[in-house]
Amino acid sequence: MDRNLYLDNMDVDEALKLFLNRAGQKLEAEEIPVAESLGRVTAEPVFAVYSSPNFNASAMDGIAVKARDTFEASEVNPVILEKGGHYEYVDTGDPIAEPYDAVIMIEDIVEAGEDKVKIISPAFPWQHIRPIGEDIVANEMIIPSYHVIRPVDIGALLSGGITNIMVYKKPKVGIIPTGTEIIEPGEELRLGNIIESNSRIFEGLVVEYGGEPKRYAPVPDDYDKLKAALKNATAENDIVVINAGSSAGSEDYTAELIREFGELILHGIAAKPGKPAILGLIDGKPVIGVPGYPVSAWVVFEIFAKALIKNWAGRPEKKETVLEAVLSKRLVSSLKNREYVRIKLGKVNGNLIATPLNRGAGVTMSLVRADGILEIPRTSEGFEAGEKVRVNLLKDLEDIENTIVSIGSHDLIMDIAANMMHRRNSTYNLSSAHVGSMGGIMAIRRGEAHMAPIHLLDEKTGIYNIEYIKKYLSNLDMALIKGVKRVQGIMTRKGNPKGITGIEDLSRGDIQFVNRQKGAGTRILADYLLKKAGIDPNEIHGYEREMTTHMAVAAAIASGTADMGVGVYSAAKAMELDFIPIGEEDYDFAIPRAFLELDMIKLFIEVITSQEFKDCLRDMGGYGTENTGEII
Amino acid sequence: MDRNLYLDNMDVDEALKLFLNRAGQKLEAEEIPVAESLGRVTAEPVFAVYSSPNFNASAMDGIAVKARDTFEASEVNPVILEKGGHYEYVDTGDPIAEPYDAVIMIEDIVEAGEDKVKIISPAFPWQHIRPIGEDIVANEMIIPSYHVIRPVDIGALLSGGITNIMVYKKPKVGIIPTGTEIIEPGEELRLGNIIESNSRIFEGLVVEYGGEPKRYAPVPDDYDKLKAALKNATAENDIVVINAGSSAGSEDYTAELIREFGELILHGIAAKPGKPAILGLIDGKPVIGVPGYPVSAWVVFEIFAKALIKNWAGRPEKKETVLEAVLSKRLVSSLKNREYVRIKLGKVNGNLIATPLNRGAGVTMSLVRADGILEIPRTSEGFEAGEKVRVNLLKDLEDIENTIVSIGSHDLIMDIAANMMHRRNSTYNLSSAHVGSMGGIMAIRRGEAHMAPIHLLDEKTGIYNIEYIKKYLSNLDMALIKGVKRVQGIMTRKGNPKGITGIEDLSRGDIQFVNRQKGAGTRILADYLLKKAGIDPNEIHGYEREMTTHMAVAAAIASGTADMGVGVYSAAKAMELDFIPIGEEDYDFAIPRAFLELDMIKLFIEVITSQEFKDCLRDMGGYGTENTGEII
Repeated sequence: MDRNLYLDNMDVDEALKLFLNRAGQKLEAEEIPVAESLGRVTAEPVFAVYSSPNFNASAMDGIAVKARDTFEASEVNPVILEKGGHYEYVDTGDPIAEPYDAVIMIEDIVEAGEDKVKIISPAFPWQHIRPIGEDIVANEMIIPSYHVIRPVDIGALLSGGITNIMVYKKPKVGIIPTGTEIIEPGEELRLGNIIESNSRIFEGLVVEYGGEPKRYAPVPDDYDKLKAALKNATAENDIVVINAGSSAGSEDYTAELIREFGELILHGIAAKPGKPAILGLIDGKPVIGVPGYPVSAWVVFEIFAKALIKNWAGRPEKKETVLEAVLSKRLVSSLKNREYVRIKLGKVNGNLIATPLNRGAGVTMSLVRADGILEIPRTSEGFEAGEKVRVNLLKDLEDIENTIVSIGSHDLIMDIAANMMHRRNSTYNLSSAHVGSMGGIMAIRRGEAHMAPIHLLDEKTGIYNIEYIKKYLSNLDMALIKGVKRVQGIMTRKGNPKGITGIEDLSRGDIQFVNRQKGAGTRILADYLLKKAGIDPNEIHGYEREMTTHMAVAAAIASGTADMGVGVYSAAKAMELDFIPIGEEDYDFAIPRAFLELDMIKLFIEVITSQEFKDCLRDMGGYGTENTGEII
Repeated sequence: MDRNLYLDNMDVDEALKLFLNRAGQKLEAEEIPVAESLGRVTAEPVFAVYSSPNFNASAMDGIAVKARDTFEASEVNPVILEKGGHYEYVDTGDPIAEPYDAVIMIEDIVEAGEDKVKIISPAFPWQHIRPIGEDIVANEMIIPSYHVIRPVDIGALLSGGITNIMVYKKPKVGIIPTGTEIIEPGEELRLGNIIESNSRIFEGLVVEYGGEPKRYAPVPDDYDKLKAALKNATAENDIVVINAGSSAGSEDYTAELIREFGELILHGIAAKPGKPAILGLIDGKPVIGVPGYPVSAWVVFEIFAKALIKNWAGRPEKKETVLEAVLSKRLVSSLKNREYVRIKLGKVNGNLIATPLNRGAGVTMSLVRADGILEIPRTSEGFEAGEKVRVNLLKDLEDIENTIVSIGSHDLIMDIAANMMHRRNSTYNLSSAHVGSMGGIMAIRRGEAHMAPIHLLDEKTGIYNIEYIKKYLSNLDMALIKGVKRVQGIMTRKGNPKGITGIEDLSRGDIQFVNRQKGAGTRILADYLLKKAGIDPNEIHGYEREMTTHMAVAAAIASGTADMGVGVYSAAKAMELDFIPIGEEDYDFAIPRAFLELDMIKLFIEVITSQEFKDCLRDMGGYGTENTGEII
């Protein structure tokens, strides 16, 4: 089959409207027991069959009386009532029947001989009686149609005599993963394989939107097999989602198959990621072709499958929660597409700060880390840093407000501290963005972070961090929380096959280097070492290849695409690399002094000074915790 | 057993703290497949096993090259590359291995003879290559502990090579309904029976809070049977909730049994409803004794069981959403208890208005209708109308904002209109509070309602509604939406056994009347008729028995506790009563003119002028729809 350039570039809103017009009709209703109806959606209003209570009931323990027999009673002139004719004992909940029309509490009567009681105040008619229908009156509407059934609704429905209820059927959603390169989780991962995970994301989303997912085994990129799978899935389901592999060509199979056996509504939308979306009908059933990259897949699913499933399931459309936030860095986008940018939000000094996450279509972790989505319209070329933007929330605002925004240098200990914090008090979170030490300093200066983990060596004094804070943050009242002493060194492949002994080996010419990004403390250290060794960076193979974390450098070496890099011991250990120590540095936390008063910062300090944290670092190796938690 | 007065009156917060201290420990973790972990809570942080991608992958269709071979390329000086030595064709997703370190897109190359290509611009190293770990780096933390797993988390976990995951076990919650008077839904309802529904509410709530409910068959109020049930449930579950019947004595059994076989922590809290709560331990397992009335049961469950279940399930504590609202009527409460008042909220003219619902402990419908809960502290005797109060939200604020607040006279057509509105556009709701026509007029005057359904006869002119609006709402720019002509009449038991012919029969002395509340249009009509007939209300049996809806009056007559009442034909028909028409009246909607511009009001008018609505009323009988929807 020929390669196929996308034909359409339809506006997302227009495409959704078109698709819902063609496929957005509703499913039939079904009758189910009320007791099993939690979370389902009523297909019709429900009217009570019985009143509740359906008899006049005593609301107290006491005696049932005829009110008119008691009207004369007073302390001066008590009334004596006789059992049988005048009263009967009743417990709470007992029916009150004619001739009785009132209840006197047991505390208010005095025994006056066998089967006689004395009362000293009148009872008014219907006192202490729960009248018929006090809770529910027969024939009244208990819940309307299109109502998502909650636990209390179930209680009221049963009390009103309803045992079965008409609800909308859950639409069955067939999910077909495709691609020759994909493997199932747990299978052996060979070179070129990708673990199939998109379909599992879809399964979860289908459940959340009120559908019933059915996932099929992955289908290789083979026309006949895809055809059989698509035929089968459309027969067995109400809606089909077919997920192309990330390799070329598979999307074209889907489009061609839909065109052949049904109707191709659209191939290609003006969205980034998500461009190669496919919308069609087979045997009148909607088929959504979703691209292979995880974020593209998620975007297309969220636009089309979500609307369709909720529509068929009778679920009310919810407006998304949109908040205004200040953009922390410039975002450039093309005019052609609506771009969906994953955003990390943080509330610093009362301002909501939006920091764009990795924009790659293949970065699932950008969705895991995202607090919201910023849509850049087709008509916009992006936004400037400091501009106000509107972000669709993916999390509760409360969670965002209870999150320490840490921007700066990367270290594994940030993950460990985050986890320990969250375990001690699940209200608070720690979110780390890795932009290097200097990036962290700048973020503090712009008021975008609570704290910045830094390890910045002042070449003149040999002292870490303090000089940089003085220089770049002189206008702020800053504190420095001492973090850890950590060992930096040269990482090489296990067994050190190239016999590397130090930074000097970079001048040999047969060594492939992997670098850190500009502004990272480790980059500054590496450049300092090169300068000392008199090596020209232009001579180094791989000097321009920049990674943003220690782990990424370690991973590049472990995979064999580089021979050496500079980083911390813990990363080398995690990737089973050899490690040549260069020296110890101070990895500390720059923080505006005012934030030390925040409960979540107090918790952070509590965690890093805890024995648990120190023990954990000792086990990892490569860290010193002598002064950890000290505030300067 | 002797009746037992409650011994304790402990403050709710203190009681919860005491209980969680004794029983709030956590359950063990269990290992489950990631693919089945949606909504579960991680018991430990999860670190990636593999990087994703775990090889350097082409991000484009094109050729893999060595970047240094291309550095010289320009339009003037194109470079010719040879297959095998200089390049290989690659598809998106293919691995890029040494010696290649860059990809050139297929669009940017020109075939130059067999196995030769021409390029006219240089490739920089690592261009169009997804590096190892672009998404996930091996050993990095994917999600922390205490994290509720979402669909995207499942995707990232699987991509990171995780197939099984440690999550907190769902606590098993045993639910025992008790009471000799209760029957199961669907069983024949005899006099004195109550349909058991609390346990079904609990089942739903347990699921929502992350537990696994196990409901037992109802147990009669019998010491030995209760003992066996409690022993069995504590053996089979982690937490036990035992729900007393509403009849007296059963709570005492629970307390005594806990004291006998375990430890009674507390019996009685300072809450209303919910006072007779019981907290204890049997074999170290928490047992919560919940009172019988549905709202009391819900309050106690929400205070103690919710906290315990979420605690054991490892779910993060969420702060409730609390909003400030203006109280629409006075609320008097006792100093002894914290009272939980169910609140209907409405946004009228930008103000959030809180209207208390029925405060009876037996009124499940107050929970169904509630938008929030107002807690009146023990130290407060209540609030004045117009005071600002804080309401814990039970629904989304968006739903509340999209709800027409209708306060005034009751008619079945309000339920029908509400349902048709919601079906046409599920965004909008109609909430009706029934306080009578005059109550509706006053609510409009105080700015607490969007509209007031009224039917108020001006005795002098014989004209309905307009005179009252002029008199009481002269300071507002008001409109009147014409509603329906409806037939009022006298309702009597089926077959009219007492031979009632008109309002005059009330003077006979053997007729039990059931009245409407003061301010209701129907009450005004009845009083007008009595005056005309020259009957003194003091002579009428039941004149003081007031119901707030037509259906409640009809229900009282149908159940035999009254012989006659005044009301609309549709209510008589629904309850299969005889009906003697008195005349037609105008049931209209008073509305501030500005609200006619609201989309939800437009929808309401669209509904009541629709053929569907008119057909429905014609089928019910007793209504005229000649001018329905006209605006005056």
